[in-house]
Amino acid sequence: MYPEKEERLQAVLPFMPEAIVVGNGDFPSHPFPLAMLDASTCVVCCDGGANALVESGRVPSWIVGDGDSLSETNRVRFHDRIHRISEQETNDQTKAVTFLAAKGIRRIALVGATGKREDHTLGNISLLMEYQRMGLEVAMLTDYGSFVPAADTEEFAGFPRQQVSVFNVDAVQLRSEGLRYPLYDFHSWWQGTLNEVTGHSFRIQAKGRYLVYRTYEAKK
Amino acid sequence: MYPEKEERLQAVLPFMPEAIVVGNGDFPSHPFPLAMLDASTCVVCCDGGANALVESGRVPSWIVGDGDSLSETNRVRFHDRIHRISEQETNDQTKAVTFLAAKGIRRIALVGATGKREDHTLGNISLLMEYQRMGLEVAMLTDYGSFVPAADTEEFAGFPRQQVSVFNVDAVQLRSEGLRYPLYDFHSWWQGTLNEVTGHSFRIQAKGRYLVYRTYEAKK
Repeated sequence: MYPEKEERLQAVLPFMPEAIVVGNGDFPSHPFPLAMLDASTCVVCCDGGANALVESGRVPSWIVGDGDSLSETNRVRFHDRIHRISEQETNDQTKAVTFLAAKGIRRIALVGATGKREDHTLGNISLLMEYQRMGLEVAMLTDYGSFVPAADTEEFAGFPRQQVSVFNVDAVQLRSEGLRYPLYDFHSWWQGTLNEVTGHSFRIQAKGRYLVYRTYEAKK
Repeated sequence: MYPEKEERLQAVLPFMPEAIVVGNGDFPSHPFPLAMLDASTCVVCCDGGANALVESGRVPSWIVGDGDSLSETNRVRFHDRIHRISEQETNDQTKAVTFLAAKGIRRIALVGATGKREDHTLGNISLLMEYQRMGLEVAMLTDYGSFVPAADTEEFAGFPRQQVSVFNVDAVQLRSEGLRYPLYDFHSWWQGTLNEVTGHSFRIQAKGRYLVYRTYEAKK
């Protein structure tokens, strides 16, 4: 990648993932999540997510889920890579993440987790906080930006006019440096949206957990 | 509409809207939000939302926002229907809702509010609670289902195998009747997802505010 692209990537993804999880939402179309997919040696699909991955000319390392939305062709073709988990307590995304965690994989990027039913999207995003609790480093890459779970005081990479939203989970004493609109102790989701990076990094001070969304593109 | 469709509509939209707000997200493609648009005599577009509405062969009653994402053609064509509000404290969706509230309109459906940037989607959804605080009846219609803000104990229309998710805002003592998985005092967004209506209505008991998502289609 060009140096400029490298800076952009660091400003949305704070680690190099060991594995990518492909969800059941809209298959990615943005070059960033697609580049991460192509760079990864371990791509785990949530059930039906495998159909879209194969259609895009790629091949899953594993397919995890209850197997009910996998096409017959893919079920036959990848029968040796399907890991069936039929319990109803967790969704396919969590099954895939738990499967990877059990293999000792700690740094995971999720793609294809948004789009389609909005309650699935909200559920998938909030599950990032659970994976963080499991001791994993996770980030969700959509077609517009990334969601990264965070806790307490943290420093984030960015670039001028990168758009940022912060969603408060249970944090108090929220403050910020390097954002256009200083953070305060808010609770509603909309109150932390539509912020902007002023330089090449920013810092959030807090006690507790929150979710940081950053766009791939600067505001024009 | 056919009686069956009428039942489906009541099971996602608890009131007949006096006005529809068209957001800056993905323009609707599902027949329900499109039917609501066509049935309404008052369609207010958030700025750029007007471009998509006009492209679909429809005409806005009003265009509200800062006017920066409206096409030149539409700016000229609808110059007498543009209501410019350039303040930066609220987003275009809230400007449109506030504009309608000032005209005495109390029952508002929102379409085109999801899709595109996910932080905008989350912000727009959470703003429903603010509109409820303003004394308005609001519902957001997406391509998959509806979000309706609720408080305390309420009764909801539904149909067998309709998919339901409940997002807790600040409610306690959450209980339910008529849902496949009984509600409990949860906090994370994912914990209230993937529920299902068992009959033709359900009841949520609570103290405080929560958001109810219901799909248009029954689970197959």
